Amino acid sequence: MSKSIQEIAAHIQATLEGDATLQIQSVSSMDTATEHDLVFLADEKYATHLKNSPAKAVITHQKLDLPKTQLIVANPRLGFAKALELFDRPKDVRPGIHPKAWVEEGVELDPTVTVYPFVTIRKGAKISKNVILYPGTYIGQNVKIKEDVIIFPNVTVFPNTEIGARVLIHAGTVLGDDGFGYVWDGTQHYKIPQVGRVIIEDDVEVGANAAIDRATTGVTRIGKGTKIDNMVQVGHNVEIGKFCILCGQVGLGGSTKIGEGAMLGGQSGVADHGNVPAMARIGAKTGVTGRLTTSEPVFGTPPVKGRDFFKAHAVFKRLPELHKRIQKLEAEVEKLSGHSEVRRTEESLL
Amino acid sequence: MSKSIQEIAAHIQATLEGDATLQIQSVSSMDTATEHDLVFLADEKYATHLKNSPAKAVITHQKLDLPKTQLIVANPRLGFAKALELFDRPKDVRPGIHPKAWVEEGVELDPTVTVYPFVTIRKGAKISKNVILYPGTYIGQNVKIKEDVIIFPNVTVFPNTEIGARVLIHAGTVLGDDGFGYVWDGTQHYKIPQVGRVIIEDDVEVGANAAIDRATTGVTRIGKGTKIDNMVQVGHNVEIGKFCILCGQVGLGGSTKIGEGAMLGGQSGVADHGNVPAMARIGAKTGVTGRLTTSEPVFGTPPVKGRDFFKAHAVFKRLPELHKRIQKLEAEVEKLSGHSEVRRTEESLL
Amino acid sequence: MSKSIQEIAAHIQATLEGDATLQIQSVSSMDTATEHDLVFLADEKYATHLKNSPAKAVITHQKLDLPKTQLIVANPRLGFAKALELFDRPKDVRPGIHPKAWVEEGVELDPTVTVYPFVTIRKGAKISKNVILYPGTYIGQNVKIKEDVIIFPNVTVFPNTEIGARVLIHAGTVLGDDGFGYVWDGTQHYKIPQVGRVIIEDDVEVGANAAIDRATTGVTRIGKGTKIDNMVQVGHNVEIGKFCILCGQVGLGGSTKIGEGAMLGGQSGVADHGNVPAMARIGAKTGVTGRLTTSEPVFGTPPVKGRDFFKAHAVFKRLPELHKRIQKLEAEVEKLSGHSEVRRTEESLL
Repeated sequence: MSKSIQEIAAHIQATLEGDATLQIQSVSSMDTATEHDLVFLADEKYATHLKNSPAKAVITHQKLDLPKTQLIVANPRLGFAKALELFDRPKDVRPGIHPKAWVEEGVELDPTVTVYPFVTIRKGAKISKNVILYPGTYIGQNVKIKEDVIIFPNVTVFPNTEIGARVLIHAGTVLGDDGFGYVWDGTQHYKIPQVGRVIIEDDVEVGANAAIDRATTGVTRIGKGTKIDNMVQVGHNVEIGKFCILCGQVGLGGSTKIGEGAMLGGQSGVADHGNVPAMARIGAKTGVTGRLTTSEPVFGTPPVKGRDFFKAHAVFKRLPELHKRIQKLEAEVEKLSGHSEVRRTEESLL
Repeated sequence: MSKSIQEIAAHIQATLEGDATLQIQSVSSMDTATEHDLVFLADEKYATHLKNSPAKAVITHQKLDLPKTQLIVANPRLGFAKALELFDRPKDVRPGIHPKAWVEEGVELDPTVTVYPFVTIRKGAKISKNVILYPGTYIGQNVKIKEDVIIFPNVTVFPNTEIGARVLIHAGTVLGDDGFGYVWDGTQHYKIPQVGRVIIEDDVEVGANAAIDRATTGVTRIGKGTKIDNMVQVGHNVEIGKFCILCGQVGLGGSTKIGEGAMLGGQSGVADHGNVPAMARIGAKTGVTGRLTTSEPVFGTPPVKGRDFFKAHAVFKRLPELHKRIQKLEAEVEKLSGHSEVRRTEESLL
Repeated sequence: MSKSIQEIAAHIQATLEGDATLQIQSVSSMDTATEHDLVFLADEKYATHLKNSPAKAVITHQKLDLPKTQLIVANPRLGFAKALELFDRPKDVRPGIHPKAWVEEGVELDPTVTVYPFVTIRKGAKISKNVILYPGTYIGQNVKIKEDVIIFPNVTVFPNTEIGARVLIHAGTVLGDDGFGYVWDGTQHYKIPQVGRVIIEDDVEVGANAAIDRATTGVTRIGKGTKIDNMVQVGHNVEIGKFCILCGQVGLGGSTKIGEGAMLGGQSGVADHGNVPAMARIGAKTGVTGRLTTSEPVFGTPPVKGRDFFKAHAVFKRLPELHKRIQKLEAEVEKLSGHSEVRRTEESLL
């Protein structure tokens, strides 16, 4: 599936310098590139790396003094993303309802919608043009899905969920399952019915095997353009702003609020009713409780500002040594002062 | 779907004070309530909040001096849960086997069971009255399911699993998959066959995309009334007592034992063969190894009692400062004592 | 399903000492054994435990002075694994394509392959002998599956994935979904197409509800004989060596490299581009960033060598006390030296 360098230049809107007859076999990272590949230079520090690469073509933000064909764009990483589009698989479009699917009566389906085998669509669902529903997906009652959405295999969408345009829901994910709420009634955990729903705004992507709970009452909302990685857990009544990034295995407790543009590292979590400000940077594995008041990077549980965390951690490793030094100091001071008060304090605490 | 305040009062067994003709449109939290909503007051500290709410009706545990219609019950949060039942979706009951399902011969199905399309039921399964099996669920050989169980879409239940009455299994969850056990045979990890099974007792709820491994030999058991949130991993041969709460993304290593009424916070974990006492309170992200000996709240890895953990963490943040103070003390003491022993100790450790 | 002790001895290649007419009902741990069970002694320290067990038969690595029938093998735990094979369920083999499955044209299926209902196989897939595809699995275009693979229910395998011989993929798992990659284009997170694929080498096992992302370009690779537990997240372009062990809920960021024989404890993680050496031992909940340079056990985030971590943690718990001791020392030294410099330092930092 080779492409001409001119076609790529046109698609990514680059200025082409060098051999305009080149054929490109794939787009690749510098580590694995062959001479037929197109690579990209996102940072000058990899210039030597590029020089030694067999790749004959590169996407760059300024003309390089190198004997390579160059595609010059303002943002080479964006150019890389767009170039890859030409090498991506086409969409699995097959308009119509496959006879092995199950579609209840009372559904509104645009004729361009692809319904694969083993898909279920329940009464009252409304699905717009170009939507693709892969095998094994379940679309509950009154679900609304806007145009150009793709729902990959084995996804479950509970009733009343709304899914915005161009949303991608990856395989195995569950949208709108019950929030986790009980009240102890004296003899058991009594279930609080979860009568709310989930709204996924336009351009959201949700990774594989994730779960987004519906609200107890009201709405769990994922803001426009937010990207959620695999196995992320979003509790009931959570509100995530626009353009956030939630990395793999993040967990958000019920009723947390995540401000616009926040980034949450892998395996981080926010406890119930937590509040994360716009543009927050939450490190991997960090645990936030309550209201986070900084958008500087934070790490640890509870969270500490990035630089301070790593400085403190460097001392943490030396704590046994520090403890010995304190003991030595106490002995010295005791000798100097001629009494034993300091020493006794430690013993009583052991 | 509005309800009369009288119907709600009867359903939650409340004493009604105020306008008995009121129609309620939904039950809601104070934050989002409109004048047509019913709210609840669980704590006197929200009394002002309530006063300013447009909601005309409130569930409360004692008569309030406010111009609102009041539903008086002993436990307002429980009243709230019960009121929500009136606003919940009806169950998706459709007794019978849909022709697009696949049911092997040699299955015992009560005629009230609902079997949706794309459900698989294997030989020897025995399913009691009012059970609902949603599309894409797989029920293995000899699985026993008691009455009033609901299994949501795309759930997999491996052979010989037993599921108690009124259990809810949420979408995408896997019950009874292989435990994770190998023995190094000199050249490879040799698989230990997992020949045991899973027993889920009555009134358990298991969240979405969770996994409960079957025992190597014997039983992995989830005790009556225990509630498990999304993406919880339960290893082989685990025994969880009655009425426990396992929040999202908790992980339990093989053969761990969790005592009755224990609560495990989100993303916490217990290592293989760990032991957690009855009524334990394990904080979010906490990691337990071995035998936990307290049911007081614990945090961190390894766990530390709650108050102690947070006090220690407050000092952790100041470790670089403390380190400097120790250095300063050493210099002072060196000056005072007229020799350099203390100082040298640090250098040798750097 | 009882077995004669002679059949077991032959199967596990043991020397039989004692009653050769014994019938064994199951293989069991010492805790739960009855007199009809076979147990194993992996460690001399459980010898007393064994003595008190009602089990009449034991797998041991040397003859024991006990009135029990003995199966003597070099590795009793391996003998236990092999003995369990005799008590395991037979494979669910049913060669052929069930009429309720959906197989596109242009697929190469060995006639011994079992295709259960609700399985999807897309064009260009090539599936070798004895493979079993359980209900609800989705096999994308051009997927190659070698002999003796079992794919459990509700698994999704994206196009171009290669699966080696004897691989087991447990229920709900997703192989080859999109890697998580975006570039900010000034107004939104622009998606980087993920055009690579996943290669799973021979003898790998992947647990339930896991996800292994396909490469952005190139390959995400799981090395031969590696075992992956439930809910493990493997990012795009990750390379895992042979014979690794990844416990439950591990997360690997994009482009991480895991050396041969590494073991990663439950809920541990490695950040994007991380590098873990061969034979590494990463403790539960540990968070690795960058290049780990030791294969000794490590714990914590960032990781600290095992013994050092636990020593430091023991002091961590006492930090409030240490802080007080430092304050006391400062006061003492101040008194001794007759000036107040030390004290003032602390106040300025508070």
